[in-house]
Amino acid sequence: MPVRTASAVWMGSLRDGNGKIKFGGFEGPYSYVSRFEDGSGTNPEELLGAAHAGCFSMKLSAGLMKAGFTATQIDTTARVHLEAGGITKVELDTACVVPGIDQAVFEEQIEDARVNCPVSMLFKGIDIKVTARLQSE
Amino acid sequence: MPVRTASAVWMGSLRDGNGKIKFGGFEGPYSYVSRFEDGSGTNPEELLGAAHAGCFSMKLSAGLMKAGFTATQIDTTARVHLEAGGITKVELDTACVVPGIDQAVFEEQIEDARVNCPVSMLFKGIDIKVTARLQSE
Repeated sequence: MPVRTASAVWMGSLRDGNGKIKFGGFEGPYSYVSRFEDGSGTNPEELLGAAHAGCFSMKLSAGLMKAGFTATQIDTTARVHLEAGGITKVELDTACVVPGIDQAVFEEQIEDARVNCPVSMLFKGIDIKVTARLQSE
Repeated sequence: MPVRTASAVWMGSLRDGNGKIKFGGFEGPYSYVSRFEDGSGTNPEELLGAAHAGCFSMKLSAGLMKAGFTATQIDTTARVHLEAGGITKVELDTACVVPGIDQAVFEEQIEDARVNCPVSMLFKGIDIKVTARLQSE
């Protein structure tokens, strides 16, 4: 199974220093203000949100397949909450097009992906909420 | 405190479908092969590694400041292990330039950041290993 690599460099103090975060073809600056305030640049929390949205969407696709349905589209947004005590909550909002499915089966698969996708399992100490909508094509 | 947003879209089945992951200015394709095999594109695990490397490096900078030292450079690589049962381990490797510090104080701060950075706290059910080196300027 795969091992994935990414990196970050930080130079200087927490408040006045600055850094870069890198993976694959991405390299973006980050700083105290891009993380804790409202400055430009990236931050660990949006990266966690991207990972969670990506993982949940794949897991939901896999679950739907097992239930006999192919998702035409799964469009998921993650909102990651950073509080004084740490990262406390992720809210996932997903809009899905799944031809032929009924609401009850859809909701079962949403709950399965919420609990069992690998990133949710990694984040299992925090609150993970999902809002899901079935849309027509 | 901030709430950060990112998103992903998945279209189709697990093996034959494909998706995109987005945050800030980044948008990258992902697929079954970019996640579980060796294909081009991003995957949730490299995003988790990027988040962890960035968070650990900031937390180490903050701890070193509290101990009376300013890091000239903290350069951290994360390796995220995805196994059949989920994400099991992160290995962090950090090379640091911290003028005036001794090895024992440095190691205390490494351990504090390993345990207490917000991403390590989020990942606390898994194995987090750190290899750290003090380098001269």
